[in-house]
Amino acid sequence: LFSLAVSGQKHPGIMITGEQVPALRAGVNRYPLLKRSYREIKAAADAAIAQPVTVPVPKDGGGGVTHEQHKKNYTGILNCGIVYQLTGNKKYADYVKELLLQYAAKYESWPLHPARKNNKESGRIFWQSLNDFVWQVYTIQGYDLVYDAIDPKDREEIEAHLFLPILQFFTGHCAYIFNSIHNHGTWCLAAVGLTGYVLNKPEYVQMALKGSKLDGKSGYWAQLDQLFSPDGYYAEGPYYQRYALFPFLIFAKAIQNHQPRLHVFEYRNKLLAKAINSMLQCTYTNGAIFPLNDAIKDKTSETWELVYGVDIAYSDINNSNDLLDVAQQQGRVIVSDAGLKVAKAVYEKKATPFKYVSEWLSDGADGKAGGLGILRDGPNTDQQCVVLKATTQGMGHGHFDRLNLLYYDNGTEVFSDYGAARFLNIESKGGGGYLPENNSWAKQTVAHNTLVVDRVSDFKGSLEQAQATHPDLVYFNAKPGLQVMSAEEKNAYEGVVLNRVTALITIPELKKPLLLDVFTALSNGEHQYDLPFWYNGQLVDASFQFKAFAGELKPMGDKFGYQHIWLNAAAALNKEAGSITFLNKNRFYTTHFTSENPLTVNFVTTGANDPAMNLTTSRAFMLSRKSSGNATLVSITETHGVTDPVYETVTGAVPAISGVTLINNSEGKKTIVFWVNGKKEYRVTINYNDKNNFINLK
Amino acid sequence: LFSLAVSGQKHPGIMITGEQVPALRAGVNRYPLLKRSYREIKAAADAAIAQPVTVPVPKDGGGGVTHEQHKKNYTGILNCGIVYQLTGNKKYADYVKELLLQYAAKYESWPLHPARKNNKESGRIFWQSLNDFVWQVYTIQGYDLVYDAIDPKDREEIEAHLFLPILQFFTGHCAYIFNSIHNHGTWCLAAVGLTGYVLNKPEYVQMALKGSKLDGKSGYWAQLDQLFSPDGYYAEGPYYQRYALFPFLIFAKAIQNHQPRLHVFEYRNKLLAKAINSMLQCTYTNGAIFPLNDAIKDKTSETWELVYGVDIAYSDINNSNDLLDVAQQQGRVIVSDAGLKVAKAVYEKKATPFKYVSEWLSDGADGKAGGLGILRDGPNTDQQCVVLKATTQGMGHGHFDRLNLLYYDNGTEVFSDYGAARFLNIESKGGGGYLPENNSWAKQTVAHNTLVVDRVSDFKGSLEQAQATHPDLVYFNAKPGLQVMSAEEKNAYEGVVLNRVTALITIPELKKPLLLDVFTALSNGEHQYDLPFWYNGQLVDASFQFKAFAGELKPMGDKFGYQHIWLNAAAALNKEAGSITFLNKNRFYTTHFTSENPLTVNFVTTGANDPAMNLTTSRAFMLSRKSSGNATLVSITETHGVTDPVYETVTGAVPAISGVTLINNSEGKKTIVFWVNGKKEYRVTINYNDKNNFINLK
Ligand SMILES: [Zn+2]
Ligand SMILES: [Zn+2]
Repeated sequence: LFSLAVSGQKHPGIMITGEQVPALRAGVNRYPLLKRSYREIKAAADAAIAQPVTVPVPKDGGGGVTHEQHKKNYTGILNCGIVYQLTGNKKYADYVKELLLQYAAKYESWPLHPARKNNKESGRIFWQSLNDFVWQVYTIQGYDLVYDAIDPKDREEIEAHLFLPILQFFTGHCAYIFNSIHNHGTWCLAAVGLTGYVLNKPEYVQMALKGSKLDGKSGYWAQLDQLFSPDGYYAEGPYYQRYALFPFLIFAKAIQNHQPRLHVFEYRNKLLAKAINSMLQCTYTNGAIFPLNDAIKDKTSETWELVYGVDIAYSDINNSNDLLDVAQQQGRVIVSDAGLKVAKAVYEKKATPFKYVSEWLSDGADGKAGGLGILRDGPNTDQQCVVLKATTQGMGHGHFDRLNLLYYDNGTEVFSDYGAARFLNIESKGGGGYLPENNSWAKQTVAHNTLVVDRVSDFKGSLEQAQATHPDLVYFNAKPGLQVMSAEEKNAYEGVVLNRVTALITIPELKKPLLLDVFTALSNGEHQYDLPFWYNGQLVDASFQFKAFAGELKPMGDKFGYQHIWLNAAAALNKEAGSITFLNKNRFYTTHFTSENPLTVNFVTTGANDPAMNLTTSRAFMLSRKSSGNATLVSITETHGVTDPVYETVTGAVPAISGVTLINNSEGKKTIVFWVNGKKEYRVTINYNDKNNFINLK
Repeated sequence: LFSLAVSGQKHPGIMITGEQVPALRAGVNRYPLLKRSYREIKAAADAAIAQPVTVPVPKDGGGGVTHEQHKKNYTGILNCGIVYQLTGNKKYADYVKELLLQYAAKYESWPLHPARKNNKESGRIFWQSLNDFVWQVYTIQGYDLVYDAIDPKDREEIEAHLFLPILQFFTGHCAYIFNSIHNHGTWCLAAVGLTGYVLNKPEYVQMALKGSKLDGKSGYWAQLDQLFSPDGYYAEGPYYQRYALFPFLIFAKAIQNHQPRLHVFEYRNKLLAKAINSMLQCTYTNGAIFPLNDAIKDKTSETWELVYGVDIAYSDINNSNDLLDVAQQQGRVIVSDAGLKVAKAVYEKKATPFKYVSEWLSDGADGKAGGLGILRDGPNTDQQCVVLKATTQGMGHGHFDRLNLLYYDNGTEVFSDYGAARFLNIESKGGGGYLPENNSWAKQTVAHNTLVVDRVSDFKGSLEQAQATHPDLVYFNAKPGLQVMSAEEKNAYEGVVLNRVTALITIPELKKPLLLDVFTALSNGEHQYDLPFWYNGQLVDASFQFKAFAGELKPMGDKFGYQHIWLNAAAALNKEAGSITFLNKNRFYTTHFTSENPLTVNFVTTGANDPAMNLTTSRAFMLSRKSSGNATLVSITETHGVTDPVYETVTGAVPAISGVTLINNSEGKKTIVFWVNGKKEYRVTINYNDKNNFINLK
């Protein structure tokens, strides 16, 4: 058990510690980031105390009146706790006390929530226990902040009739979740552990760390071991990583403050630092989090959980000044010890541009279950970024998108992922939850920039099968000028082995690297291959004739997502190579492509079989062909030119690459030849089986 | 005739005058806006002189090699002229001299341009004379700037063999254009007038001012009289006004410098100031120019012509500090006397927010040919803006969009106009010119937020008929809290009189005004009425059931633009009132609507009958009904709520208005009743025939 200071537990002791309060009080007047952040919290706290204390009997499900009131109460408690510490004004502490006394008077009489979906996951304040855990993570911090302002008799009342029953509920009725290796479990144990520290109940802290049997098979350390890869990648993907990190970090801060000898931030080779960093590396320079799996697309690094991540990383783990760049973009800090350090350093102009890197983030607890490849080139002001998704399925929120590719440039998405079919919190759209089209469209393979075999999704859309295996890393090398990554998927389709090689290639004639993409399917059978590129922008040119359907649109298929695609045009080419040019945010992109045989190019738009008009419009060009035997789809995407709306000029609208062909096409070796400005010839050779000479450019 | 100073003509004397050069030289090192602007020009000038002097024999049409070279030459001449004045470095003057001597050696040998479309509008340097005029407007300024650095013998050569022949060509062969009341004429006369001043040939200046017969029936003054309304509105609309203003302003500056007693800036009650101001008032707070008629949509107030407008307005006409706000947004100034004043004032922090106003901009030389109504509410950081287009047709670039409505809010378009179907300067898209869909779609009535009768465009799409008449102003009042405008169109459809009343109504329950829109069609016959609202954003709710076509899309019609619309869903309502909610840039908009009888709501998307995929995707909900006799379509658009992607919260997603009905529905009077928050009742009464009590709210 941990030993507390002889004088007993000190309060506050989580995000704000007593010793830092004087500095924090000075800081909120001095450092703009902290000042602005505090002003928001102060305004919210003042708004809260202006309302009567309301603790309704739990009744409504998500979004309902009692649900929203209990949510308001926990943010009110935390905000008032912070403002009490910073102002010393007792009215804020009294508000917290009143609320908690009312909860204490009622909590024990509340049974499982009437709107629960099942008993096992039911909360008592909310319809699902997850919300109860979150409630407690916020509330216990607020209580810690006003602890000294509440007289012992009232504290006794609150602890005996609210917090202890909650601890018992979380570790008793909710033991299944408490001991699970899952982000709901993280919230549960963080709530228990924080409460254990604040109430000075070491036995609960121990359970939070080692599981309710104290055997280490579950609990905080086990979760850190199993939920993250050695690179800090979280199996469900960056959108969920952001959410999952939050309770990990708050509890880590409490562990560090109360039991520094556990060296929580050093655990597993600084796993928490890696998790924060990999999260930030899973963003583009515009802050957008890579929208993999069931992600809401407007999510950026400004999200509140990443404010915690950046501030704690900077203050407690690794005070790298490039984190300050992210903090500046976030425009806020936690009003806390950590936020004070960040705001001060930003004020002192220590920020340097965030160091985006090219890297392979391994997936799996052992780091051997595939991973996410990221290649980048150029300054943060105009960066190219390519992502190859070769991770595990990511459980129930995972998409069937093995070897999916994302491409960013010029501060925006070029080839993108649909993300989730969901309007978060918008009641009229399926109650704000996942829409039916999330399964029928967003998760399907064809919704992604990856190969679809026989117009069926990976693993025929079976989560169980998809979860059972993973793609494999073939090669990764971020050598400047010729960055390359390759991964392989053997299980998504029976009898077909998929491999993708994606590279950023710099040639002296062009300012920006070329995006080379070589997708191979090895198979003996005859198959239909479709490789869509979901592009952003407006189609402006093609090397071939096509004619969009004028008087009628039909869906492209009837299942695996094809039922949601309107086929706008289908052009059967009469030669192997071709190109398509589109204009996106005043810049041109031309995708030059080729294959062993002429392709059919399909132009498609989402929106078919969508009676409630739930889908947003996306557009793709899809390279398609039938093949008996191996198939190779090669593309080189070139960025060129600019339209200047101020001067009404267009420059460089014509691509520099004038042809691409595939030669030496064997299973182990492929050579792609392309010409620049009609004369200079380049050859890229991929040696699939030679790690010492995987790719070369001549 | 004007009298020059005894010492003869002084150089330079147009945008930069000799006396201001020392101040300008100091200013480019001191004032950031001027510094940055000069740096751009210096870089462009250095790039120009690094290239060999090239004066090719004219051969290619727009976009071709010789075309682009001659364009490069005139910007090079002007840029080098400016840099010569600011550095005194003679190499820049020598470059201009070399170029001009080469032109002088060749110009007289060039016949009409080989790529001309007809003789009348042919240039000699370019395929159309307009480009020759522009060339000369730039070039003569550059010559003026380096005049003193060229020795008299070379000047004699250049004037005798280049500029005099040009003057003769412009006033001779091009006399038809020179004397026309049209923006090509403005460029022509500005070129002639500027050249007259620089060469000290008063006879040419006189012709520029009064027409080639000196009778005042054409020329600068006549153009100022006839091309603009008394409010400074230009008949072709703001997109063309921007372009047309440019030669007016440069020539005005030259007139002011050389013949201040002509008081050009005072002419016609300060018409030029009004033209600049009305241009700026035809923008939204994000800088976007209202995309009326054949407008390219990404055009903003940052356009180069408006930099001239703002700088000259500030320095020479009306140094109102709110113009500096626009200059700051533009981020650049003219490197000139005017730009110096602006940059200095901005540096001295004199800028105040630009004063957007609600106003009626009359159209027609007499101000009695309809006009453009603009209502605004709120600060520049979050302004609502409604535009009612009741102007004349605007000639060949005009759209058949009588009583069209635009609506902006939250820094973005809410109900928008398609603008022109054109990808400016993108060769692969119809050579960068107007696409066939500009006529078949963009100009048609249904492409606009206005009433279509019997699925036929205004005037059956006849320009001649549309040009012959104009809508009329009925009422305009910008009283805070109840701003209203109304216009009437009697000629667009035989036997149908159209009237639109559009108002911004403030009620205490809501933070933002409501957009009330009452469209009436008076007719004895039976007609089909369609009122589309081309909205931006994503549909999230409707008060009625609808089911989008799932397995097939068909165009809505076969002519007048309907052939380009896919019908996604058609919902025949069973009651008079209904509502539609959409989400745009994190804010909700609900349009509540009603009519005398239940409407059919059509959800539509552009893209049908578009074989080359030239159209961008737009979406509308269209209120439709058949009516024998008068029809009234009422809508109230409410803005509410916000989604916060950072905190993942949604507030105010439910509209406050809970119903709208139409009572007292006669030709002269209509009362619209609506309820707020389910209880408070409001009545808006419109008395169409009572200008003293046109609208009231109870
Ligand atoms: Zn996806
Ligand atoms: Zn239009």
